[in-house]
Amino acid sequence: MEQLKQRIRREGKVLPGNIIKVDGFLNHRVDTALLGDIAEEFAKVFDTKKITVVLTAEASGIALATVCAQRFGVPMLFAKKAKSDNIESGLYQSEVFSYTYKKKVTLLVSQEWLSADDHVLIIDDFMANGFAMQGLVDIVNEAGATLEGIGVAVEKGFQGGGDKFRAMKGVRYKALAVIEKVDENGITFREDD
Amino acid sequence: MEQLKQRIRREGKVLPGNIIKVDGFLNHRVDTALLGDIAEEFAKVFDTKKITVVLTAEASGIALATVCAQRFGVPMLFAKKAKSDNIESGLYQSEVFSYTYKKKVTLLVSQEWLSADDHVLIIDDFMANGFAMQGLVDIVNEAGATLEGIGVAVEKGFQGGGDKFRAMKGVRYKALAVIEKVDENGITFREDD
Repeated sequence: MEQLKQRIRREGKVLPGNIIKVDGFLNHRVDTALLGDIAEEFAKVFDTKKITVVLTAEASGIALATVCAQRFGVPMLFAKKAKSDNIESGLYQSEVFSYTYKKKVTLLVSQEWLSADDHVLIIDDFMANGFAMQGLVDIVNEAGATLEGIGVAVEKGFQGGGDKFRAMKGVRYKALAVIEKVDENGITFREDD
Repeated sequence: MEQLKQRIRREGKVLPGNIIKVDGFLNHRVDTALLGDIAEEFAKVFDTKKITVVLTAEASGIALATVCAQRFGVPMLFAKKAKSDNIESGLYQSEVFSYTYKKKVTLLVSQEWLSADDHVLIIDDFMANGFAMQGLVDIVNEAGATLEGIGVAVEKGFQGGGDKFRAMKGVRYKALAVIEKVDENGITFREDD
């Protein structure tokens, strides 16, 4: 998605350790008009008539997932992150390693709000190693729901997280901007796949 | 807002300790159409032409704040919650007590994204004691920005959190459903103020 790549080129900041900050328009201050355009782009990629719910993980995925769910006319469901060992019953859960917290966190979704009848589109704003995404996929499987697709705004392609989702059979995967390389010359994107 | 009160009456769950769960449509699975209607309601209450940014706190406020910001044509900015003592520089911060985490957390907003030129509408989905809301107000003041209004979807009026904001001079405060009492007879709402 050219518009998104331009924003990343223009406003993204490259920090030591190949960290790319897009917190001016995607995951701290959020450009809601851009999110609307991203939702339109996903509407072209996925068969949105099939989808019954958009799933994401707190916190930064919520904004984009909400705009997408509203565009597709379905509810948005976000997995909560628990750092406690004291997890209630009645929850789907998946343990993932969080780079934000530098430790394992558990993704939680109430069994009340996701069932085998659901057709799920997972949406996230950012994917690096794909651990959180795998946790969301695990939760969809735990519920016996049908995973219809995975949509990511920005993928750090050089960390390899997206490749295992591209290889999943029967699940459409789409990242709108895949960062191939980050170095002193700036940010290089992968050609659209 | 009658539609919201009806949803709370019909789908809200009262748990021991006067806890009211609205996680089926507001803060876990989110009814995005309802959020659109709530944003329309806030558009009637606040002078949205003045607003330059909608501010909220992660995580559950993000969905509603995003839909409101999109409706008003401005960015959405969410304060991050840090549980660490290791806070970077360049941040506005306010320490608040979190009932979710049962301890103090620090609300953080990058100084890059909020300035004295901003006219801020704070939006949150739920308010009980108002501690998190006070933290957001403190951050607006720290930035020297102008607080134009505070909009809350559901207020637990009997916990008194809303009253100090109603008493603020020059700041419009609006809660769309104020719960006055919760007992064996169910949920009683305050008349619209």
